[in-house]
Amino acid sequence: NDKLKIFSLNSNESLAREVAEEIGRPLGKCSVNRFSDGEVQINIEESIRGCDVFIIQSTSAPVNENLMELLIMVDAVKRASARTINVVMPYYGYARQDRKARAREPITAKLVANLLETAGATRVIALDLHAPQIQGFFDILIDHLVAVPILSDYFEAKDINNEELVIVSPDHGGVTRARKMADRLKAPIAIIDKRRPRPNVAEVMNIVGNVEGKTAILIDDIIDTAGTITIAANALVESGAKEVYACCTHPVLSGPAIERIDNSKIKELVITNSIELSEEKQSPKIKELSVAPLLADAIIRVFENKSVSTLFI
Amino acid sequence: NDKLKIFSLNSNESLAREVAEEIGRPLGKCSVNRFSDGEVQINIEESIRGCDVFIIQSTSAPVNENLMELLIMVDAVKRASARTINVVMPYYGYARQDRKARAREPITAKLVANLLETAGATRVIALDLHAPQIQGFFDILIDHLVAVPILSDYFEAKDINNEELVIVSPDHGGVTRARKMADRLKAPIAIIDKRRPRPNVAEVMNIVGNVEGKTAILIDDIIDTAGTITIAANALVESGAKEVYACCTHPVLSGPAIERIDNSKIKELVITNSIELSEEKQSPKIKELSVAPLLADAIIRVFENKSVSTLFI
Ligand SMILES: Nc1ncnc2c1ncn2[C@@H]1O[C@H](COP(=O)(O)O)[C@@H](O)[C@H]1O
Ligand SMILES: Nc1ncnc2c1ncn2[C@@H]1O[C@H](COP(=O)(O)O)[C@@H](O)[C@H]1O
Repeated sequence: NDKLKIFSLNSNESLAREVAEEIGRPLGKCSVNRFSDGEVQINIEESIRGCDVFIIQSTSAPVNENLMELLIMVDAVKRASARTINVVMPYYGYARQDRKARAREPITAKLVANLLETAGATRVIALDLHAPQIQGFFDILIDHLVAVPILSDYFEAKDINNEELVIVSPDHGGVTRARKMADRLKAPIAIIDKRRPRPNVAEVMNIVGNVEGKTAILIDDIIDTAGTITIAANALVESGAKEVYACCTHPVLSGPAIERIDNSKIKELVITNSIELSEEKQSPKIKELSVAPLLADAIIRVFENKSVSTLFI
Repeated sequence: NDKLKIFSLNSNESLAREVAEEIGRPLGKCSVNRFSDGEVQINIEESIRGCDVFIIQSTSAPVNENLMELLIMVDAVKRASARTINVVMPYYGYARQDRKARAREPITAKLVANLLETAGATRVIALDLHAPQIQGFFDILIDHLVAVPILSDYFEAKDINNEELVIVSPDHGGVTRARKMADRLKAPIAIIDKRRPRPNVAEVMNIVGNVEGKTAILIDDIIDTAGTITIAANALVESGAKEVYACCTHPVLSGPAIERIDNSKIKELVITNSIELSEEKQSPKIKELSVAPLLADAIIRVFENKSVSTLFI
């Protein structure tokens, strides 16, 4: 067991601490600082020769800082003769840049996969990738964990009559995710069906499915500026929903997100700690659930060479 | 000639403009912005199919932002079917992390080389790499330009009697560079010879060579916090130098650098525009020379498949 080493970088230290505690191992000793000119300075302060190293780092904002920290740490771990280098990314930044949506765009999600491999990562543990296809961007092993059970269990404990429940996808892309949650909660689904009848004409918002008198739970993978989710919540209330919850795995919450949520019809926003919320991103409406047990379980299973339980989505 | 495309990213746009003007081509159209959450958003706004593309970007501070911009741009250029992707890096960040100086350190200069290759760069044009060995970190072609002639020409124009001149290296590592400048100016060299007699005993500063009554020119590749160079300048004056100039290729000038220079015995600090000086880094002692003609010449030579004139150092 002393061949299992867990290191935290700077993006999400509290989650890493929790994971290490779950596993019952101390966090590895290393200093991750900046030189005077802003260059990343890393020094690993204990031997990791022959060890299975797990590096926990979300590439959330500041994404370029956090990603470079991760790549440089992987390089340092490699040169320190680790046996395997497992990168645990509770949040995978740049996941939305996963295809050319216009001519002459980059595919940064693929670039990031290549950079991690080049640095020397031997395996990746990810959580709710924006597109599950990103698994195929890697030539190394990748385990894809899913937070739907954690989110579902939380709502299950609220003991809402499932006749009164409806799980809502805020767009067409998220219907599979809504379906998974609906299966677990034995509830029907609905879809916010936005479309633009003609170019340069305002979008029409339509709700497919019955929400009248019901408790609606909006589910998404990422909530970023919270535009989509708050408009959807308000539309649900206008269509007769009794109350609206929202949940997501990754609380990016940039720009006007918190203000929008506070001013919306959303009763409660349930998130996970895949991204650490900074001080200015607190809101009384937010309920945070921990993915530490999920990550700890995956780390132990990888270390013991057992199958990692994933929910295929 | 319309197959030659020059793009600028955000680190050093004024230098890129100058280079494009020298060459007589407009800068390529592209937008390099940030999404709301801080992720780099790049869109190339003109066709570059079959072209030889030159991307000008110094990986100076904020180094991680500038490096990720560069990698993502290379990816976008590659996917836009460019014929060759030439990365012009007037300043190569992380160059000082070029070896393991302690156990379990990364070698980030090598990592950066690998990342550039992985992204798809086909050639690199660099200027005064901190260690010329970094050329060997690349499996793709690299041209290594040298700013010593530009710096030397500036001092030559001052018409100082070369009997009265001495070129000084601020440390042992920089003696070859000082020798090159001394050759051009037909002057002798001196060396600041710092050593620590025993561990935990203060350093002893000794000057090897004759500086009495002379005009001393300190030369270094990078001036970062300016500790070494200002201490050296003051030591030269104490040893009888008549006046002290300092020069370098890369003005990193982080932390207390400007204050130290302003308060030192340095009469004038001569730098190049390989790194753009931010507003708060201005000083009346600083004289900036342009490397635009040098870069423009190298770009044209690469484009025309001619040998790039480098001064081997
Ligand atoms: N960080 C980001 N913030 C907002 N939009 C993004 C970001 N990264 C990529 N995109 C864009 O979002 C779109 C993909 O989002 P989606 O349709 O939800 O998969 C693409 O058109 C991307 O250009
Ligand atoms: N950005 C930086 N600022 C200050 N020191 C650095 C930086 N990057 C690397 N170093 C250290 O500087 C030393 C190399 O400097 P040098 O001896 O001048 O080549 C190494 O010990 C590095 O750990």
